[in-house]
Amino acid sequence: MRTLYHMWLSPQSRKVRIVLGEKGLDCRLKAEKTWERREQFLKMNPAGDVPVLVEEDGAIYADGRAIAEYLDETYLDPPLIGTDPKLRAEVRRLCQWFDDKFMAEVTALLTAEKIMKRFLGMGEPSSEPIRCALQNLKVHLGYISHLAERRNYLAGDIFSLADISAASHISVVDYLNDVVWEDFPAAKEWYMRVKSRKSFRPILKDRIAGLPPPGHYEKLDF
Amino acid sequence: MRTLYHMWLSPQSRKVRIVLGEKGLDCRLKAEKTWERREQFLKMNPAGDVPVLVEEDGAIYADGRAIAEYLDETYLDPPLIGTDPKLRAEVRRLCQWFDDKFMAEVTALLTAEKIMKRFLGMGEPSSEPIRCALQNLKVHLGYISHLAERRNYLAGDIFSLADISAASHISVVDYLNDVVWEDFPAAKEWYMRVKSRKSFRPILKDRIAGLPPPGHYEKLDF
Repeated sequence: MRTLYHMWLSPQSRKVRIVLGEKGLDCRLKAEKTWERREQFLKMNPAGDVPVLVEEDGAIYADGRAIAEYLDETYLDPPLIGTDPKLRAEVRRLCQWFDDKFMAEVTALLTAEKIMKRFLGMGEPSSEPIRCALQNLKVHLGYISHLAERRNYLAGDIFSLADISAASHISVVDYLNDVVWEDFPAAKEWYMRVKSRKSFRPILKDRIAGLPPPGHYEKLDF
Repeated sequence: MRTLYHMWLSPQSRKVRIVLGEKGLDCRLKAEKTWERREQFLKMNPAGDVPVLVEEDGAIYADGRAIAEYLDETYLDPPLIGTDPKLRAEVRRLCQWFDDKFMAEVTALLTAEKIMKRFLGMGEPSSEPIRCALQNLKVHLGYISHLAERRNYLAGDIFSLADISAASHISVVDYLNDVVWEDFPAAKEWYMRVKSRKSFRPILKDRIAGLPPPGHYEKLDF
């Protein structure tokens, strides 16, 4: 069976898990402590990051975005980038928006302070980066609302990698109880629809030992 | 005619210029001072970054990676990601390597200290980030050498977006005279081949007012 090396709260790992779910592909999960820089893992991916996918033929695929594109062009149903060139460009623009911009401005700050520091014994979270991240998060939730008010899904008519990328980050931040949902009703309505997909269910069952999510994290109606 | 909003030493902008050149597509260049956050530009790309491509039909494409993929799937000759799924995944993995990892560990540090500080009047360059970037650069040149010794081009047999992404970053760092080429002969041989492509010539003619490149910057045999 194919194997995905991942981390529970890595947005890129979650993205690949959701894509696998959408495509109906079975996969065994192996949690990888990337900070241990395990030699066998570095041979698979010299960048040292998750996710890494080992396919049934033994081929190794690294980098969440490369894996998502690979899966979409190898397992065609359902298409997650679309067929129209303009839509495809919009899907990819939004993937980068969340994977680069949202990551740098929100997810990386919150996970570094609230998770990595704690589990690696690096002291207490600092309030300044958390404050920054929460301020940035409001701008991003505003942007999601703006898109969701104008389109069926974030990039256009179809549920796409753009929604998956966005929801992968949002779900991590929501696990940490940092989303004030009532201020962003259009973003909330969009996220409810994403949450209700079968491919998203395993994500909602994730639990980090010693760091439980808030009660609404897995509720479809929150 | 199509228009590309760009910055001279933005690796993503250079990538799109080279892709346009490979595909034989004419394009008018407009330099965009992204730090001025011009309202009309933000309407085209709310992320505020270059490159932004306006196609002949008026359609707007933002994000260097999304634009490169769009151009490759719209203008098929020559293919710059390849046709084999494994090769395509390897091309994309390496694009991310340079656009994310090389960018964060090398290009962003050097351009922030040596260019942005100077042109925005933010004081003298700091030695610590420059020292870090030059140390990281050696690791990356070692990785390029490792790949170039084993493959015809970085991702495999064909000249691809992986080479274009890598060379876009390397050319910026080389403009700043920060590459010690003699320590990395295999990387140098690869870069000589990339430099000699017709699509790369405009990049070698780039000149920033008040910041000339070293003499070897545009030489094909350096």
